[in-house]
Amino acid sequence: MRIQDILRKKRDKEKLTKEEIVFLINGYTSGDITDYQMAAFAMAAFLNGLDADETANLTFEMMKSGSVVDFGDFKGFLVDKHSTGGVGDKISIPLAPLVASCGVYIPMISGRGLGHTGGTLDKLESVPGFNVNLSLEQFIETTKEIGVCLIGQTAEITPADKKLYALRDATSTVESISLITASIMSKKLAEGIKGLVLDVKVGTGAFMKTVEDARKLAESMVAIGKKMDRTVTAVISNMDQPLGEMIGNSLEMLESFETLKGRGPADIKDLTFRLGAEMLKMAGVVKTDEEAFQLFEKKIASGEAGEKMKEILKAHGADPKAFDDYSILPIAEKKYSFLAPEDGYITKFNTEEVGVSAMLLGAGRKTKEDIIDPSVGIALHKKLGDYVKKGDVVATLYYQDDNKLSQGVDRLKGAIFYSSEKPVEFKLVLDKIHS
Amino acid sequence: MRIQDILRKKRDKEKLTKEEIVFLINGYTSGDITDYQMAAFAMAAFLNGLDADETANLTFEMMKSGSVVDFGDFKGFLVDKHSTGGVGDKISIPLAPLVASCGVYIPMISGRGLGHTGGTLDKLESVPGFNVNLSLEQFIETTKEIGVCLIGQTAEITPADKKLYALRDATSTVESISLITASIMSKKLAEGIKGLVLDVKVGTGAFMKTVEDARKLAESMVAIGKKMDRTVTAVISNMDQPLGEMIGNSLEMLESFETLKGRGPADIKDLTFRLGAEMLKMAGVVKTDEEAFQLFEKKIASGEAGEKMKEILKAHGADPKAFDDYSILPIAEKKYSFLAPEDGYITKFNTEEVGVSAMLLGAGRKTKEDIIDPSVGIALHKKLGDYVKKGDVVATLYYQDDNKLSQGVDRLKGAIFYSSEKPVEFKLVLDKIHS
Repeated sequence: MRIQDILRKKRDKEKLTKEEIVFLINGYTSGDITDYQMAAFAMAAFLNGLDADETANLTFEMMKSGSVVDFGDFKGFLVDKHSTGGVGDKISIPLAPLVASCGVYIPMISGRGLGHTGGTLDKLESVPGFNVNLSLEQFIETTKEIGVCLIGQTAEITPADKKLYALRDATSTVESISLITASIMSKKLAEGIKGLVLDVKVGTGAFMKTVEDARKLAESMVAIGKKMDRTVTAVISNMDQPLGEMIGNSLEMLESFETLKGRGPADIKDLTFRLGAEMLKMAGVVKTDEEAFQLFEKKIASGEAGEKMKEILKAHGADPKAFDDYSILPIAEKKYSFLAPEDGYITKFNTEEVGVSAMLLGAGRKTKEDIIDPSVGIALHKKLGDYVKKGDVVATLYYQDDNKLSQGVDRLKGAIFYSSEKPVEFKLVLDKIHS
Repeated sequence: MRIQDILRKKRDKEKLTKEEIVFLINGYTSGDITDYQMAAFAMAAFLNGLDADETANLTFEMMKSGSVVDFGDFKGFLVDKHSTGGVGDKISIPLAPLVASCGVYIPMISGRGLGHTGGTLDKLESVPGFNVNLSLEQFIETTKEIGVCLIGQTAEITPADKKLYALRDATSTVESISLITASIMSKKLAEGIKGLVLDVKVGTGAFMKTVEDARKLAESMVAIGKKMDRTVTAVISNMDQPLGEMIGNSLEMLESFETLKGRGPADIKDLTFRLGAEMLKMAGVVKTDEEAFQLFEKKIASGEAGEKMKEILKAHGADPKAFDDYSILPIAEKKYSFLAPEDGYITKFNTEEVGVSAMLLGAGRKTKEDIIDPSVGIALHKKLGDYVKKGDVVATLYYQDDNKLSQGVDRLKGAIFYSSEKPVEFKLVLDKIHS
């Protein structure tokens, strides 16, 4: 078998066999197939597509390119949640302890953010001492013990995906439904989970700009899960405005802690509960959303969800006191009030640009080498449909560097739109797809 | 400017600006743009195409990526011929001295063969001592002095093309009209020539399988030449059977020498004369094909064409006696007679497979690292439409290694087709396109 022949087939819109995909991924993992050959494959796959069989084979081989976590005969229900990424999306952080406090187990391998804001790992690391670099053995033990563990993609997990993901980022082949499916699902299935809830984002702050594309991606991932005997549900949620109020790493930890105390923003609570309900239903803990919501309210009110968060902080080497004493979180002291330039309803966010504004303050990475400043970010006080008067504080920018502030402010100005007409009501969850 | 944005544009079928192509080629030449990013570009360009402006800009920037040969105020008419490649195509070798003997100057930078048989350089090097590695200064001087010089692509000439060509070979992005155009034309225009004759091959032994595709490629290259103020003519010629009788490096030198003595095969003479006539017309030496043909006959009969060949051999460090004493050429002593398996007309060659058969004997390279054996090859005694009786000698295989012989014989068996019905007459030149 020759890689050139595989590239020629995909270039000519022919279907690749299982054997060819095995050859491709094994060769790429071992280095026999070069980055430039894989880049040509990624572009051909982007333009000519991969069908359901090809995508399933690609996912399976990428999963098998490294270790697959093995929980042995552990009896707990293992479930995870994955988001395709959005601005202000810290849902995993309140969700994991909340769901774990209901007796479900969440072994979560997360990524770092590239482009706008930080990823879950960056947010967690903003709590001093929080260590996401645990071994797979520690990962398994901690999950069994406290019900949650949150680590980064180790070298052992899906090395083929790790290489391919960096390559796609450098070659503009990211936004392919098949390649996104294989990347997400190979990593998640390598966690050894039985169930998976996917939060597929759509809108001005997401990869997927239309509900149609988001639904295609959701269906593609759900189908792969089904082929591999996992229960998968995808929720399609709206990224036409940032999630919650906070954008920026320690600010988002603060907001996550507030949510676990019952004081978080309505949309964060709403989405956390809805995604969490899917997880509890899969695990058989509840039968309906209503039951799940009641259980979550109870776990928050009793403090059990908060205690679980503290257990997580402790297990990862951070000070559990941070949950109650926010002075432990590094939050920038310099603040800038971003004012409404006119009277009117907020009718549109260019959500991605809000994320870029936070990145320019230092909350995200332009390139992989950039170092995140955990202390900076944006508190966005207004939502779509809110009426503001000229001079009202729309957002507070937390910053360290005047030059970065001015870049962030400039960018934010172009990201918020006002009008005298009230927009139609914002709907957070747009659709749901079951396996 | 970011390479990712350029890749995204081409991926999304948008037109690239001149500035973007400058950025692409400069970055690739300097190494700022990686092989994997260029591979993604090549695949996107292959699948989504490049228009005439993009192709012209790509050609121009690739030409400028290295030295452009400068003949200063030299008054001679500088012209070259380029073939897109075929089996048994040694036309450059008799053509260059024949045309130079008519007072036209030919600075020829050639390639090596990859895939089936050797390239012009490999054929020349089969004459002991022949050195194709001259400096650009020697190249200019030799061309001025004797009217011809034949060298390989030096490091100074179109380094961007050199890198891109190897990359395309490894990523199955060779057969793109725009990329072929840019590759050929950038190299040829870097020779400092005023005129160019292109021999665009079509058929079972060529890249282009249909006359339609060959015409598109010819028109694309002629258009680029026009944009750059060069006179360009493209001849579309038939590769449904090997050119001449000989396939293999020193065998093809022998056939070239025979042609210069007026004893070559009819098709070699025909194509050499037709391509040469275009060159003489561009240079203003003759007005019509008939005049050119008469002049060529005279130059052959008088021995002037042969003398020019000897001058070339001498200038490149080979023994000019080889022109008359073929024992100087390394030709394998072991011969195998390939017999007709049945009575019938020869109705079809899979010409590429005939080339592969010669390659398997050792006359070509499977990979860039393979070393060519100049002594081996095939003398194909029959042409399309010839009638053979079972047991007639169709070809003689010159070989060194019994194992390689059996591979070559096996391959040749599948490459020749016989039938009781006489096929339609073979036409060598199918079309001609002027700038």
